[in-house]
Amino acid sequence: MERKSFAAMHCSVAQCLEVVGEWWTMLIVRDAFWGVRRFEDFTSRLGISRNVLAQRLAHLVDLGVLAKVPYSEHPPRHEYRLTDKGRALWPVLTAMRQWGDTWAAPDGPPVVVEHRACGAAVGAVMTCAGCGERLGPRDVRLRPGPGDRDELFATTDAAVPYGG
Amino acid sequence: MERKSFAAMHCSVAQCLEVVGEWWTMLIVRDAFWGVRRFEDFTSRLGISRNVLAQRLAHLVDLGVLAKVPYSEHPPRHEYRLTDKGRALWPVLTAMRQWGDTWAAPDGPPVVVEHRACGAAVGAVMTCAGCGERLGPRDVRLRPGPGDRDELFATTDAAVPYGG
Repeated sequence: MERKSFAAMHCSVAQCLEVVGEWWTMLIVRDAFWGVRRFEDFTSRLGISRNVLAQRLAHLVDLGVLAKVPYSEHPPRHEYRLTDKGRALWPVLTAMRQWGDTWAAPDGPPVVVEHRACGAAVGAVMTCAGCGERLGPRDVRLRPGPGDRDELFATTDAAVPYGG
Repeated sequence: MERKSFAAMHCSVAQCLEVVGEWWTMLIVRDAFWGVRRFEDFTSRLGISRNVLAQRLAHLVDLGVLAKVPYSEHPPRHEYRLTDKGRALWPVLTAMRQWGDTWAAPDGPPVVVEHRACGAAVGAVMTCAGCGERLGPRDVRLRPGPGDRDELFATTDAAVPYGG
């Protein structure tokens, strides 16, 4: 199936998919959060062909998600580090991991995440940045923002957004 | 590029990508959260070919993310509704949207999300389900869980997970 670019869609979910929607991308980002920085280490952990990996890494550097940083001059060597834009993907990664833990990990979670401060092996939950209450799909309503160009609101029943 | 199945990887991020990593899937789920339920409405909103849409919807029904529910017997008609497994993707969708709003929406967010309870147009933040503190990549540490089969921990520098 031909890949369609979502770059022209005025939707932030589509914009995020434009970056992370490619199958390997998010696993590369996952490993970068684990501290993996070098080409050889990405290859051995992901079991990905060198060709595809090189392509994906170059794409992530172009997008500003990873930075290519030299660590040796003789011989010239570089490693890949998350930028601020890349580190900002942490909530996406965390939400994906937790969904997988709940719905697709019959043997239990492969990785347990502990909160350093309270020591508990707990999940992350989404809360309102304003009042701190937990958020779910029925707790929010949507309205057009300044970047709305596609009249998303005109083509749905605005009375039941997030009605599931 | 040939699609590789992530189903055999013991990683919950990979398991989530197995479901939502296909480019169109998450936009279908997004629209389902908007209350879109019928084939024709998905087609017109997404600008997707009927063929690809039918394939994607069938896949999401197979995976248990959408349920196919009859709404008319004569003629036989059905619609697609999010299941619990599908609604559980809301944090993934929200995290993606917020990343896109911040890093890829030069004209401002296309959609503003308001918390019904407090009325503020605020973002969702990830907090610890145990103590309520805000969570970021440096606030957590990882350890192998019951479902660990790939020795992810053996192949990284465990001293700096999430070191970016």
